[in-house]
Amino acid sequence: MLQKDRAALCPPMGWNSWDCYGASVTEEALMQNARFMAEHLKPYGWEYVVCDIQWAEPTADSCEYHPFAALAMDAYGRLLPAPNRFPSGFRAIADSIHAMGLKFGIHIMRGIPRQAVYLDAKVLGTDATARDVAAPYHECHWNTDMYGLRRELPEAQAYYDSIFALYAEWGVDLVKVDDVARTDYNPADSYDGATDVEMIRRAIDRSGRQMVLSLSPGPAKVERAWHLCQHANMWRITDDMWDRWPQVKAMFERCDAWQTHVRPGCWPDCDMLPLGTLRMFNGGEPCLLTRDEQRTLMTLWCMFRSPLMMGGELTRCDAFTLSLLQNEELLYLDQHGVGARQLSRSGEEAAWEAQDERGARYVGLFNLSDTDRKVQAAPSWLAQGAWRAREVWSGALLERPGASLSAQLPAHGCALYKLEEEGE
Amino acid sequence: MLQKDRAALCPPMGWNSWDCYGASVTEEALMQNARFMAEHLKPYGWEYVVCDIQWAEPTADSCEYHPFAALAMDAYGRLLPAPNRFPSGFRAIADSIHAMGLKFGIHIMRGIPRQAVYLDAKVLGTDATARDVAAPYHECHWNTDMYGLRRELPEAQAYYDSIFALYAEWGVDLVKVDDVARTDYNPADSYDGATDVEMIRRAIDRSGRQMVLSLSPGPAKVERAWHLCQHANMWRITDDMWDRWPQVKAMFERCDAWQTHVRPGCWPDCDMLPLGTLRMFNGGEPCLLTRDEQRTLMTLWCMFRSPLMMGGELTRCDAFTLSLLQNEELLYLDQHGVGARQLSRSGEEAAWEAQDERGARYVGLFNLSDTDRKVQAAPSWLAQGAWRAREVWSGALLERPGASLSAQLPAHGCALYKLEEEGE
Amino acid sequence: MLQKDRAALCPPMGWNSWDCYGASVTEEALMQNARFMAEHLKPYGWEYVVCDIQWAEPTADSCEYHPFAALAMDAYGRLLPAPNRFPSGFRAIADSIHAMGLKFGIHIMRGIPRQAVYLDAKVLGTDATARDVAAPYHECHWNTDMYGLRRELPEAQAYYDSIFALYAEWGVDLVKVDDVARTDYNPADSYDGATDVEMIRRAIDRSGRQMVLSLSPGPAKVERAWHLCQHANMWRITDDMWDRWPQVKAMFERCDAWQTHVRPGCWPDCDMLPLGTLRMFNGGEPCLLTRDEQRTLMTLWCMFRSPLMMGGELTRCDAFTLSLLQNEELLYLDQHGVGARQLSRSGEEAAWEAQDERGARYVGLFNLSDTDRKVQAAPSWLAQGAWRAREVWSGALLERPGASLSAQLPAHGCALYKLEEEGE
Amino acid sequence: MLQKDRAALCPPMGWNSWDCYGASVTEEALMQNARFMAEHLKPYGWEYVVCDIQWAEPTADSCEYHPFAALAMDAYGRLLPAPNRFPSGFRAIADSIHAMGLKFGIHIMRGIPRQAVYLDAKVLGTDATARDVAAPYHECHWNTDMYGLRRELPEAQAYYDSIFALYAEWGVDLVKVDDVARTDYNPADSYDGATDVEMIRRAIDRSGRQMVLSLSPGPAKVERAWHLCQHANMWRITDDMWDRWPQVKAMFERCDAWQTHVRPGCWPDCDMLPLGTLRMFNGGEPCLLTRDEQRTLMTLWCMFRSPLMMGGELTRCDAFTLSLLQNEELLYLDQHGVGARQLSRSGEEAAWEAQDERGARYVGLFNLSDTDRKVQAAPSWLAQGAWRAREVWSGALLERPGASLSAQLPAHGCALYKLEEEGE
Repeated sequence: MLQKDRAALCPPMGWNSWDCYGASVTEEALMQNARFMAEHLKPYGWEYVVCDIQWAEPTADSCEYHPFAALAMDAYGRLLPAPNRFPSGFRAIADSIHAMGLKFGIHIMRGIPRQAVYLDAKVLGTDATARDVAAPYHECHWNTDMYGLRRELPEAQAYYDSIFALYAEWGVDLVKVDDVARTDYNPADSYDGATDVEMIRRAIDRSGRQMVLSLSPGPAKVERAWHLCQHANMWRITDDMWDRWPQVKAMFERCDAWQTHVRPGCWPDCDMLPLGTLRMFNGGEPCLLTRDEQRTLMTLWCMFRSPLMMGGELTRCDAFTLSLLQNEELLYLDQHGVGARQLSRSGEEAAWEAQDERGARYVGLFNLSDTDRKVQAAPSWLAQGAWRAREVWSGALLERPGASLSAQLPAHGCALYKLEEEGE
Repeated sequence: MLQKDRAALCPPMGWNSWDCYGASVTEEALMQNARFMAEHLKPYGWEYVVCDIQWAEPTADSCEYHPFAALAMDAYGRLLPAPNRFPSGFRAIADSIHAMGLKFGIHIMRGIPRQAVYLDAKVLGTDATARDVAAPYHECHWNTDMYGLRRELPEAQAYYDSIFALYAEWGVDLVKVDDVARTDYNPADSYDGATDVEMIRRAIDRSGRQMVLSLSPGPAKVERAWHLCQHANMWRITDDMWDRWPQVKAMFERCDAWQTHVRPGCWPDCDMLPLGTLRMFNGGEPCLLTRDEQRTLMTLWCMFRSPLMMGGELTRCDAFTLSLLQNEELLYLDQHGVGARQLSRSGEEAAWEAQDERGARYVGLFNLSDTDRKVQAAPSWLAQGAWRAREVWSGALLERPGASLSAQLPAHGCALYKLEEEGE
Repeated sequence: MLQKDRAALCPPMGWNSWDCYGASVTEEALMQNARFMAEHLKPYGWEYVVCDIQWAEPTADSCEYHPFAALAMDAYGRLLPAPNRFPSGFRAIADSIHAMGLKFGIHIMRGIPRQAVYLDAKVLGTDATARDVAAPYHECHWNTDMYGLRRELPEAQAYYDSIFALYAEWGVDLVKVDDVARTDYNPADSYDGATDVEMIRRAIDRSGRQMVLSLSPGPAKVERAWHLCQHANMWRITDDMWDRWPQVKAMFERCDAWQTHVRPGCWPDCDMLPLGTLRMFNGGEPCLLTRDEQRTLMTLWCMFRSPLMMGGELTRCDAFTLSLLQNEELLYLDQHGVGARQLSRSGEEAAWEAQDERGARYVGLFNLSDTDRKVQAAPSWLAQGAWRAREVWSGALLERPGASLSAQLPAHGCALYKLEEEGE
Repeated sequence: MLQKDRAALCPPMGWNSWDCYGASVTEEALMQNARFMAEHLKPYGWEYVVCDIQWAEPTADSCEYHPFAALAMDAYGRLLPAPNRFPSGFRAIADSIHAMGLKFGIHIMRGIPRQAVYLDAKVLGTDATARDVAAPYHECHWNTDMYGLRRELPEAQAYYDSIFALYAEWGVDLVKVDDVARTDYNPADSYDGATDVEMIRRAIDRSGRQMVLSLSPGPAKVERAWHLCQHANMWRITDDMWDRWPQVKAMFERCDAWQTHVRPGCWPDCDMLPLGTLRMFNGGEPCLLTRDEQRTLMTLWCMFRSPLMMGGELTRCDAFTLSLLQNEELLYLDQHGVGARQLSRSGEEAAWEAQDERGARYVGLFNLSDTDRKVQAAPSWLAQGAWRAREVWSGALLERPGASLSAQLPAHGCALYKLEEEGE
């Protein structure tokens, strides 16, 4: 186990502002979610409150970015939370969140602000300026805030060191680095995120503070699994995930590809949970997934052991959504599952198995098709013992299942069986 | 563990005719290698004698294929060993090899012979003919023997069933299926090998005989690892491997990508060992790798637990080559290693660690650069115990290595340390 | 002017069997269309009767190909018309067509029959056989009849020479060579049609008979214009064209790209006219283009000077269709136009101008949008003279148009103005 | 003929600063070349003095660009010549050049300065600012000066209008627009130069001053020929051309593709003449092409009728270089040739023919191979008349050439025959 693994021995669980606030999250929004989490979700393991993109931009008001917007920034080209949106500043916010027994995370883009380049800001602790270290043709291709960094220069490392030193001062516990995990993002400029990841790893280590390193967006390449495991704690294995069934379904293929790369400190990330009330900047829209689809999503994420970052506004959670976030059995599987693996997969169905540390075995059956369907799995251990089965979502008991488990499932629905040996 | 895994609980070890005989292998060549293996290598675990490509072609005489050559074939479009090259037939050859305590393998191409299509041969046990089941635009793109099969037809499965029934009769223990593992081989025809692999798996299972299923050529895609593990026993993770250093070096990247997919019954395959005397059709050419490069190759293959298929003509083995094939410690690691993983890798060097079932730990250091270089590794367990180290290739002892292991290595060279806890 | 240009000093006009008979054309169909042409269309310049694909295949019965079907062939691997479909043979059919004052064309695929390869037929006038000259990996990717030819071998040229000698004996006047004009047809095998085109040019020249060389399918590459002009008489500038508006509309882009490459002996080809009664193998389906779309098609084809090959069954022509084929003014523009060029083009509209040899000027206005639209053009010569204008399709007169021509056009409709200077 | 064609009825001839001064050209360099041109080259038709890239950048000193350099700019985001490099300003420079009877050209990049965006400069004559009209993801990918423009906005057109109004005030006669002719420059951002070209055309027309519009860099796509002819006067058909033989040789393929698109007002551009003394920023390097290669270059450029922009420092011209620039016969062919076309081309040789307006015919023979070679051409008119031939470069006379012209040519060499009918 590497030192950096200790920052995330279990898949991180928390809330992230993107799905409900886009670029426009405020201190108020952060704090009301933190308070809700402390009160209702902390006992279930939820702990991170993550402020997503554009916190330095005073005029952000939706999920759109404002090209060339002026950003809050210090004299060393380090972005600061926009005072009109985060009047207390991130240090005080982190303190408040810590005081609730929770943790604080922030989002950053790789690189250095274009604004720092135009102001030719000094890089802290060096003789170089932003113009010296910026890489103009490795810029982000969907947001105008940043240029890339000239990775061959020690002063570029110094810039990263300077921002993580600041984050350590603030008391940040998790950093989600954006525009870095998908190495073929822009084939025209041959940008490869690997070097940025290494530099950021080094900057965190030098900061003296333990922080979870989360990489975005995906899909990360599975050939790069070793490198990712070596440097990061979680990395997106897909592009942005929203409340649409085809995206949930597509995740089964991604989890298939990544299943052997899940281990303490190293968490392939299925992205936020787009559940409950989303898109507050549009007035608050309810999740468009059916309840069956939401159960399927939760079951896959938890068996696979993805990080769990709730995307919906917590204070608007209805009872069903809350029941998903407070399902102790499922969350236990996510946090403490062992040996999860896919049993079968086709375009129409899938099955997974996992164990927990207490000896129970789990089998998940998934109907990926658009009509009712009987789905079946026959892991070899099933016939070799005498099992007692209970379906987790319904509580239904199934005595002596025999050599196979099967369920008649609605379209996009699932069953999750927990099996315990009789006589235990 | 799947039923098919039992055919290869350890990485298969044997000899394959391609590197020395190309398309022109004969019964005589097979038998002389079998006899040598029985006498000199069997005690070390070597057991498969594999007859590679073009055994049905009477005029094959080198590593080149003869376009449109007439093939030996039965009335059901099933290829037979060319009588002039294999006068005893494969059943008798298999019997002889089995009598030596060894196992017999053959190579096939996916699909159905073009010759069967032109003769419109009947598919055994069906009313269909070869013309009905052949898929003309999914043919092989580097050999004219075969068309693809129309995978949607049960009669296509019947054809595969019919050939594997024959192989079971012959007593075949391993089948290397060619033109099937690299799913993007021919982007123009959208051929995907996955369905052929499933059909062949089914045909083997129906044959009633346990056979190792080996897929070629690579590179297989790591995203497909689960599917490959589910159906095959070994699959090539590279294109053809020859006695050239850049190919050995490139394997470090492939092993990095595949390291978490190695387990009993499922063996990512680094391809044949191009050692000793190769290319007998050119008169017999000595391996062009230096001794350092050969040791590096053997160390990586064995730590990674690749199948080991000797490519050189066994009866021409010199003492050095034989010492590689009889290195018990190394072969034990290949056959019974545990937890092998890459510790580090750059363009210039790499390090791996592994354990064996008896508690010993191994660290391999590799100099991938073209000049002398000091290579170092510091796995965390090293500092936590009191170890006794021995370099496997040289036998040199290293008392109390401390927190790291290092070695001054020649270009392309390696060191393999075996570490045992003191006092044990 | 090159010698080969004399075979097609004007754009060839005729009838082709593909659009109505697919692969299943017969002697009877050829002859009934020839008789109709001789009687009703010959005075308007129509002269070629072209037998399209699969005439050697006895069982062809639709527009589908039968994989691996047995073909009529002579001892030298040269395909012959299937006797059941063409009982008189092509020599007698050509004689009959010639006796009507018309010309006879046939379709061929590039390459050599796979069947000749399996029978190992001799190549006429050489010691080589089909197996020697066939190129297995340059085969056609949508029809199983042929392999490619190994273009580096003189015996491959001899094969082409042998088939064109036969066509000269038959009295063939036009050969449409298929699978040859689109050089990037199959990126996986790096096939380039240029060498086949050169070989076929040579074979025609050696045959001693003048034949129009027509290349198919497109799109040919405009970078290759010089090479095509040097060797062929017409070549497809699009993929197959059918009776669908998007394909008509797309032709405006193609004509834009090719407009400077139109000259006697060299005719970029917009493909057959899918007019009247099509798809006789489905019982005869009426053209799905509206009358406006058909007029637009005819106006573009004729201004651009495309070859005109009627695709519909002639004996089933209704009065409207016949009026298109007998429009003398339009056909004169096609056969004798001068200086055609695009005046303007956007996604919604286009305008072209042309002249005829007698001093008249033409302006075509085209509404490419899906709603009514006023389309306008103002060629500079218009304001510089005193013109008398007549709209060709409606006959409407327009005195003194001034500096621009405009028309309110229905969706997909056109206007074609013929302008003559007053006082002439 | 379009109005814009009148700006360039013959291929523009002049001098461009790039090949000798890169980004670092100064007023002094411009003026010394202008004076040399006026004295030595103007009688031969040379007239444009073109100031290439980076004239707004005070610190430019080589062919490299300085990322993020501060630029001279007015309050409306319009770049100005850097006062330290062009103390008199462009209006005075243009006046001086005009006074010599010459013309003045400048280079610009498409788009709007990034610096204008950061300063949020107003767009002249509108309420918009640079931030409103800039398109951040359509920026140039090899120079940091500019962003793209949001082409859907009238204010973006207004920006172009504002800069061309300034150029008209200055008295600019030619504008070379960069980063615009190669439409697939950056596949990742789907940038298409066509709209910029249309906007710039409109801005020139609105400026009230006739200016040659030259587009760079290539290769432009030949499918776009019509659009280019409609809007520009010259456009690069290759990437940057330097003094290397492979680039000269490659131009034969480009001229083949573009030969039918050459006409008054529309000149496919083979790029600057890298002759004489180049790269003054490296101290002045002599052209690396052999004399044979230089003659081949000049012969092809002039037969094809490319614009001729001398790249070497004029005041450093040696006698041989000067003889190329003063070859009246060759320049006459470039300026007044008719009907130039390729006769033949292979990897080893090429032949072209052309005529002049006075009845003479020309045949160029080119040896593209690396060894001596006899090259031959037999245009059909040759055998049909009685001709008198003279080789232009050597002056050698050839009486009665017969049906073909041939020459033994050194590697990369050429012969250019001028043929006149006897008795004329």
